[in-house]
Formats: sequence, structure tokens, C-alpha cells
Amino acid sequence: MEGFDELWAGGPRFMQRGGGFRLSTDSVMLADFVNVKKARRCLDLGSGAGVLCVLLAAKAPDMCITGIELQEDWAELSRVNLKENGMDSHVDIITGDLRQQVRLLPAGSFDLVVSNPPYFSVNSGYSAPDESRAAARDERSCTLWDVCFAAGWALRWGGSLCIVHRPERLSEIFCSMTANGIEPKRLREVCPKAGRAPSLVLVEGRRGGKSGLSFEPPLILTDDNGLDSAEARRIYRRGEFSPDAGRRQTQ
Amino acid sequence: MEGFDELWAGGPRFMQRGGGFRLSTDSVMLADFVNVKKARRCLDLGSGAGVLCVLLAAKAPDMCITGIELQEDWAELSRVNLKENGMDSHVDIITGDLRQQVRLLPAGSFDLVVSNPPYFSVNSGYSAPDESRAAARDERSCTLWDVCFAAGWALRWGGSLCIVHRPERLSEIFCSMTANGIEPKRLREVCPKAGRAPSLVLVEGRRGGKSGLSFEPPLILTDDNGLDSAEARRIYRRGEFSPDAGRRQTQ
Repeated sequence: MEGFDELWAGGPRFMQRGGGFRLSTDSVMLADFVNVKKARRCLDLGSGAGVLCVLLAAKAPDMCITGIELQEDWAELSRVNLKENGMDSHVDIITGDLRQQVRLLPAGSFDLVVSNPPYFSVNSGYSAPDESRAAARDERSCTLWDVCFAAGWALRWGGSLCIVHRPERLSEIFCSMTANGIEPKRLREVCPKAGRAPSLVLVEGRRGGKSGLSFEPPLILTDDNGLDSAEARRIYRRGEFSPDAGRRQTQ
Repeated sequence: MEGFDELWAGGPRFMQRGGGFRLSTDSVMLADFVNVKKARRCLDLGSGAGVLCVLLAAKAPDMCITGIELQEDWAELSRVNLKENGMDSHVDIITGDLRQQVRLLPAGSFDLVVSNPPYFSVNSGYSAPDESRAAARDERSCTLWDVCFAAGWALRWGGSLCIVHRPERLSEIFCSMTANGIEPKRLREVCPKAGRAPSLVLVEGRRGGKSGLSFEPPLILTDDNGLDSAEARRIYRRGEFSPDAGRRQTQ
């Protein structure tokens, strides 16, 4: 269909915005990292164009997903994308500010909170060509602390927060989680090649968890020849994905 | 000389204690990780048998090093080891409790603080065969927080704390450093093989530093054939080490 791009060949389809939105791999890595077992209610903080919601709805068709997105045009776009992929029946997108909105959500009511938050602190030197994109990329309207605070509010005791972020923020991630009652439990680094420093980090924290962090082996994206690694191929070969996968499950 | 073991062939020599003390590689990795440039005064918190003091004295012959060790028998042993390696003239070992002793040290007077602290929290399930070894391995007399608190006191503004620790404590390391005014700036993971999770972490924090963590490529110990990696060989081939290296420098 015109206007939609496939995330990978045969994969889910997303409409892009004019302002330079590009489909990134970060949400794909995060969706793979998330453990959805036993999670019945999931909250996506800053759900943007709905990429993560679509991927998680496909991974866990029985899970009820709520997305919160501050910008109305992104929220609207995500509803279009959910519909295009047949996931609109079990994902609910709320337009709202997660700094306020969480007060309206029942406390402790989610098993799982996920987020692909803005990566850059304000004044970090990062700049975006337009206001809308900037709000998705820098922390002018949502800081790492805001995400962890909201997650600490929304998660049930023992529930998990999973985020993807840049490696240079790892210490802030750990400290913000811990200060909000979420103990970092699992870390996976995404590395362009074996033996390299990571380009992304995937972190899972557990509300009320005991201290003790488990490192997983790094997710290495390309092999020595510069080709996709076996694991990158596995992640992108969720080839069973089809626009009706979610819809079929709910019938 | 009888009673002394070489840390590696041709390397520094250490006397071991009866209670099962084994020369570990952790201090060797930490000594390699530490940046001694511009550091004139260095403090080793919990200096044990003096392994780290000896290695740093060899790496930076002009640096004045102070070690603090709680257990008198270990402090005495470290003085023997320093002498054996010709480093006794510029390393000073204080027998004392770093939880109290730092009050006696002038605040903000060190450029560099290093530590290979006890790895196991009390009640973590770890047990040691004797009391003396247990005190070096579990946190009964010195927690991670104590080390970071002492370092925050002893470091000058802009000075660095470098520690080696177990990966599962990484979040606590970051949070304890940050809460004591030391910003985590540099992380290196020590991995048994490429593509594996780390077995140790090396962390540098800076007192009063801006946020932002730099990941270094992992230190990989063995190659695909199970042989020492090139970097492991480099670290252990500080072959120029000789018992008189330190003494010559100070003449």
C-alpha cells in the first residue's frame, strides 16, 4: 500500500512522517529483548509511531498493550500503523503527557513497562531539524528520570521495566531506576561487531527486585565479513509476521 | 627466594599467606586499566598483600602511593612484598580502617584512588575457610559504599577512582559512586572469550565529573583456540619488570 514501508521484507509496515522519521532498529532489538512470559498488561511510555506496540502485539497476542504518546500527530500515526498491521484491537493509544498521565493510570497495574525514550539530554549538543522530531529525540519533554518515575508508579510489585538506550547513559539509567524502586536485573549490549564497544544497551529492571545484575552475552550485529550475524538474521526473520497475525489471535 | 611466587615469569614476586591466599589476576587487570598520567598521589583502599601497590609503583615510578589495610598481618605481608620488589621507598602502608582512617587523611588530597574491594555482600552465600580471608572477600568490614565514600573524601576535585569488581555489582557500583560525587566515566569489561558475558568489570569514576560513560572495547582473555589473547600477553609481558625498577627510579 502506498505510503507504508516494511520494517523488513515481509515484516510489519509503517507509515513515515514527513519530518524525517526513519524506521530504526532500536525498537526491534528491544522487542526481542523483552520477556513477555506471564505479562498480561503492558505499557509503552512514549509510544511514538507505534513500532514497539506492533512488535510486542505480534510477540504476545494475548497481552493488552497501552501506549502513551505526548504528540497528537504521532499518536494518530501510530493508530494508523496499528490498524495497517491488524493490531488495533488490542493496543490502546492514549494521547497524553506521561509526566502527568501516570497519575490517571491505576498505580501498580502493569506487569511490564517498555520504553524507547529520547536519547539525548537537553544541551547535549544534539539538534533536530524540526520541533516534532526533536521532542522524540531529546529530553525536552521527557527525561530518563521521568520514564523511570512513571514506570515505578505504573508497575506492579515484581513487574519489569525494559528500555533501550545509548551506552553513555548507562550509569544514569541504573541510578534513575534504583531511585524509583526498580532494580537493574539484566543487561544486554548491542555491538556492531564482536570485540567492539556497544552502540546500544538493553536493560531490564524489576520493581522491588533484589540487587544483582545479570549480563547476557552481547548481541552482535555483523560477523567478521560484515554480513548480518546469525542472531541478527533470527531477529529479523520473524518472517511469520503478517498483517493479520494479531487479528486472528483475538477472534 | 624461598616463599615468594612470581606473578608471571620474570614478574614481581609475592609471598603468600598460609590461609589459602592465591595470587589473582584481578589486580593485574586493574593496574593495566588505571591511567596514571598526571597522578602524583595515589591511595589504595584495602591494599591487602600489596599486589596493586607494587604494580602501580612499577607503572608510575614517580607516583607516591599510600595503601590502607585493616588487617595487621596483611599490612605486614605487603611491606615484605614491597621490599622484595624494591618498591618500599615510595609506597607507604597504613594499618587502619578506611571507614575511620579517611578522616585522618587530608580531604581532597589524592589524584587517584584505586581499590580491589571485597566482592561479596554479607549474606550473599559466599563463605571463606578462615576469618582473615573472609574479611578480604566479603563485605563484613568494608562495603562498596564504604570504598566510594572514602574515595569521595580522599580525591581532589577531578581526581579518579578506579576499581575492579564483579559484573553483577555494576549497578551498585554506579549508584554508590554517583551518590558520593564520583561520576562513572569509563567502563571496561573483562571477558573470558569474545562474544561472552564479562567475568569482571573495570570502572573509572571522576570526582565532580559530568555525566557520560565511555565503554572501551572488552578485554578478551583468550582467543578462539583457548590461547592467551594478544592483549592478555601484552599485559603479562610487562617483562621489563625487575625487583630494582622502582629503586633505580628513586635514586
